[in-house]
Amino acid sequence: MADGQRARARARRGRPGYDLESVLAVAVAVFNERGYDGTSMEDLSLRLGIAKSSIYHHVDSKEQLLSLALDRALDGLFSVAQRVAARDEPAINRLEYLVRESVVVLADRLPYVTLLLRARGNTATERHALDRRRQFDHIVADLVKEAERDGDIRPDIDPAAAARILFGMVNSVSEWYRPGGRSADHELASAVCAIAFEGLRVRRAGVSGDSQAL
Amino acid sequence: MADGQRARARARRGRPGYDLESVLAVAVAVFNERGYDGTSMEDLSLRLGIAKSSIYHHVDSKEQLLSLALDRALDGLFSVAQRVAARDEPAINRLEYLVRESVVVLADRLPYVTLLLRARGNTATERHALDRRRQFDHIVADLVKEAERDGDIRPDIDPAAAARILFGMVNSVSEWYRPGGRSADHELASAVCAIAFEGLRVRRAGVSGDSQAL
Repeated sequence: MADGQRARARARRGRPGYDLESVLAVAVAVFNERGYDGTSMEDLSLRLGIAKSSIYHHVDSKEQLLSLALDRALDGLFSVAQRVAARDEPAINRLEYLVRESVVVLADRLPYVTLLLRARGNTATERHALDRRRQFDHIVADLVKEAERDGDIRPDIDPAAAARILFGMVNSVSEWYRPGGRSADHELASAVCAIAFEGLRVRRAGVSGDSQAL
Repeated sequence: MADGQRARARARRGRPGYDLESVLAVAVAVFNERGYDGTSMEDLSLRLGIAKSSIYHHVDSKEQLLSLALDRALDGLFSVAQRVAARDEPAINRLEYLVRESVVVLADRLPYVTLLLRARGNTATERHALDRRRQFDHIVADLVKEAERDGDIRPDIDPAAAARILFGMVNSVSEWYRPGGRSADHELASAVCAIAFEGLRVRRAGVSGDSQAL
């Protein structure tokens, strides 16, 4: 990337320039609106209001923008997985920590995670990202199995289905959540964990959850 | 879809093999693979192995196929909502019934519901479907609020967030579930309800009646 050239171009245009971070943010927004396949470098150039050559100062290709964006989401999730692995507590608690922190990552990096969740494997970059996503899913599935062996997860649900329902629940947040800052993100994460681990229904003393005290 | 319409289409078709139902099933599969916008009648004709004019025996346009497909999903969900409204039981139980039966509809009409969940409002037909989907979401949100007024839903979660998490959980099933017949569909619906309403975590004696004898 040629900083001197960029600075000259900026000076010439007389407008504030875009660093890689802002180019990436705009690219991801457009990819999410139109789909990656439906977006050209021309579209990005129009949206950014800069020449295509200015985008190529930052990246070699549209696919490199995709790759950077998907990594942004995946690196966040894997950093959670690493922190989970370092915790010395029962699997059920590590699983809850993983769910909670994954919701926080999703809320914090929403456009990037949205793009990841829509990736269908149409390019080598998408396929690589889907591989990493599967690795992450395995970590979740293994934790669920471990928690079930510990007797901490209800035995009437298949662990593989439980893992998928759990992460389906986390991922679906991307469909409706509008970021409202760090405290709102943590409130959301708590709500997801409360429903997933304790259930929505109020428990009454001495009765099981599904009998009603009427 | 109206049975009369189907019968007329069947009578009209000039060759064995494809009635409107099969054309629709193939169209929905292709829409889900490539996106509705990325699919032409030519693509459908190639996939079906019949001339475009044979598709036009059944429908007037690609958008009519989309409309029929989205109605297939929405009619299933609204039929559940009607059955729910007719039940004389506490809101929390009606809500659980709604979730359970929505999972069954989703599993049973998976490609149609998948198409609905991906609709982004790019056409008048999609916008109409999104309107109906919002009506359905309101029914869910109202039930959650009613259950909260009854004191049957944990008060520490915002009812609007609870409704969205709940239906996010249901909808996300479309991302991974592969239909395995009626009994597998009902098992899935039970797993979703167990997690959503009772929680994944085993309850031990003294915490609630759900406890496990360990």
